[in-house]
Amino acid sequence: MNTIRSVVSILICIAAVSSHAADPLPSWNDGPSKKAIIAFVKDVTSKRSTNYVPPVERIAVFDNDGTLWSEQPLYFQFIFAMDRVKELAPQHPEWQTTEPFKSILANDTKGALAGGTASLLKIVAATHTGVTTEEFTAAVAEWIETARHPVSHQPYTSMIYQPMLEVLNYLRTNGFKTFIVSGGNEEFMRPWVEKTYGIPPEQIVGSQLGSKFEARGDDFVIVQTPDPFILNDGPGKPVGIITQIGRRPIMAFGNSDGDLQMLQYTTSGKGARFGLIVHHTDAAREFAYDRASSIGKLDKALDEAVAEKWTVVDMKADWNAIYPK
Amino acid sequence: MNTIRSVVSILICIAAVSSHAADPLPSWNDGPSKKAIIAFVKDVTSKRSTNYVPPVERIAVFDNDGTLWSEQPLYFQFIFAMDRVKELAPQHPEWQTTEPFKSILANDTKGALAGGTASLLKIVAATHTGVTTEEFTAAVAEWIETARHPVSHQPYTSMIYQPMLEVLNYLRTNGFKTFIVSGGNEEFMRPWVEKTYGIPPEQIVGSQLGSKFEARGDDFVIVQTPDPFILNDGPGKPVGIITQIGRRPIMAFGNSDGDLQMLQYTTSGKGARFGLIVHHTDAAREFAYDRASSIGKLDKALDEAVAEKWTVVDMKADWNAIYPK
Repeated sequence: MNTIRSVVSILICIAAVSSHAADPLPSWNDGPSKKAIIAFVKDVTSKRSTNYVPPVERIAVFDNDGTLWSEQPLYFQFIFAMDRVKELAPQHPEWQTTEPFKSILANDTKGALAGGTASLLKIVAATHTGVTTEEFTAAVAEWIETARHPVSHQPYTSMIYQPMLEVLNYLRTNGFKTFIVSGGNEEFMRPWVEKTYGIPPEQIVGSQLGSKFEARGDDFVIVQTPDPFILNDGPGKPVGIITQIGRRPIMAFGNSDGDLQMLQYTTSGKGARFGLIVHHTDAAREFAYDRASSIGKLDKALDEAVAEKWTVVDMKADWNAIYPK
Repeated sequence: MNTIRSVVSILICIAAVSSHAADPLPSWNDGPSKKAIIAFVKDVTSKRSTNYVPPVERIAVFDNDGTLWSEQPLYFQFIFAMDRVKELAPQHPEWQTTEPFKSILANDTKGALAGGTASLLKIVAATHTGVTTEEFTAAVAEWIETARHPVSHQPYTSMIYQPMLEVLNYLRTNGFKTFIVSGGNEEFMRPWVEKTYGIPPEQIVGSQLGSKFEARGDDFVIVQTPDPFILNDGPGKPVGIITQIGRRPIMAFGNSDGDLQMLQYTTSGKGARFGLIVHHTDAAREFAYDRASSIGKLDKALDEAVAEKWTVVDMKADWNAIYPK
C-alpha cells in the first residue's frame, strides 16, 4: 500500500464529506418550480420515505432542443445542416438547380422548408450520410466550435440553460443517471454533449440514421446511411427509452408537444414520478413562444401539464439567469 | 453537517483505501490469458503510460451466450421460447397442427428448427410479442427463477462463468463501463442481467423487437411487436454498438463467429485495444465445440484471433473454475 496516496485519498474523502450543503439550484428563484424539484429529489432519495427509489432506478430523461439549450429561430441541427450544404455545394453542382438545396444556397430558409418532411429528410441524407461516424464527428465538432448563432452571435454551446445544468448536476449528485432523449440526431449530439452537459454518448437517445459496417484497408468503420431513419419524437420517445434505456424513467423534462408521450410514459409509472415542462416566456432574455410556434410547439402538452399537475417552469419568473456567465 | 455520518463516511473511505490488493482473477490460472488481461488494464489505467485511456473512454463489450454463460445444447433464450410455446398452447389450438409449433409441442427440437430463420422468427413473434414490456419482463423473471437446464438440472443463472464475473468486476473496479452486446434479445436479458452480472439494463445492447406506445386506461405502456426485428449479430454488433453506446470500445470479449465484426471494430481503433475469444475446450466441466458447432460456431474468428493476436482463452487450461460455487 502506497502511504502517500492513501493519505491523499483519505483527505479527499474528508473534504467530500465536509463539503458545505450550498443551494444546489442558485439560478432558480425561490418558488413552486424549485421547491417541487428539491422536494421530489429529497423524497425519492430518503431511505425513510415510502417513495424511496434505489439509485439504479433513478433515471431522469431530458429533451434537448428548448429544454437544455435554445431552439430558435431554427433547431440548431438544422442550421448545421444548412451550413454543411453550403460547405459541400462545390462537390454538388446539381444543387444549384435542385430543391431544397437551391433555396438553402440562396439563404432562403422558408423555401428550403417548403417541401416539409420530405425536404428535411433530403437535407439530412445529403449532409449527414455517406461518411464514417468518425468523419461526421469531426465535422460536427468543428462546426460547434466555430459557428455562431444568428441572433446572439454566440457559440451555440453558450446558449445552454444554466438552471438546467444545475438540475443535471443536482440529480447526479443524488445518484441519478441523466439521459438526453431528443428528436435531434444522436450522431449530431454525441460530439459535444459530454463536454457541455456531462452526459456521456451512451446516455444519449436520439433520432438515428442507418449504419453500415465496412472494412477500409486495415481499419473497420461504420458508415452513416439514409435508411432506416428512426425518428425519436412524440410516441417515438418512449420507444427510444425502452429500446436504449430499458426501464421507465422516474423524472422527465421537456418543453414541447414532441415530449408529451415521454412525459406521459414517465409519470404514469407506479410510485413517485416527476414531470416538468419548460415554458418559454422570456422574450427579453431568450424567446417567447408556445401554442402557435412551428419550432417547439407547446399546446397539448401544456394542457396536459395542468391536468396532470406537472411542474411548468415560467422561464421569466423562475430563472434568475438563462445562459452560463 | 451530521458528525456521526461524517465519521462513518471517513471510516468507510479509509477502509476502501486500505483494502488489500488481492488477486483480482482467482479463478484464472496463471498463464498468458490472465497475464494479458491484467497487463492491458494496468497499461491503459496508468497515467504514466503512453497508452493511458481516461475513464469515460474505458468501454468494454461482452457477448453473452457462450461468453458470459453457457449456450449448449441450445441458446437458453430459445429454450425459454419453447417453454413459452407450451405454456401458451392452450390459447392457440391451431399450433397443434402448424409448424414450427407442432414440433415444439411434440418435444421435437430438430423439427422445430427445420424451417431455419423463418421458423425462428415465427417462434419469437409468437412468444415475445403482443405483450407489454412489463408483462414480458414478469414472464422472463419467472422462467429464469424456475426453469432448469436439461443437462445440469441447475438454474440457468448458475451456469454463468465465474472467471468472466471476475473480469467484469476487475474492469469496473478500474473505471471501465461494462456492456453486453449480444445476439439475444434485450427484452429477454434485461429482467435478470443486472442482478446476475451487475450490468444495468441501459448497458445491454441486443437484438430488438419492435415497440409501440399505447394508452391503456390511465396508464401508458410499450407493447412488443414483431416488426421491425433488428438482429444484433455479426456486422449488426458494431452497428448496435455505435447506435447505443456511441463510441468504439477498447476491449471486446466474444466466443463465436457472430462476434467477429465486434472484435474487428474494437481492435482496429487507434491506441491500445484488447480482443479476447473464449474457446470452449472443456467437455468434462462444460462443453467442447468450435468449428463444426451449429450453436456458437467458432471458425473464422478463431483464425482471425491467431492472425490478430487476440487472446484466446483455453477454458480447460485457463480456468480453475467454470461456474460460481
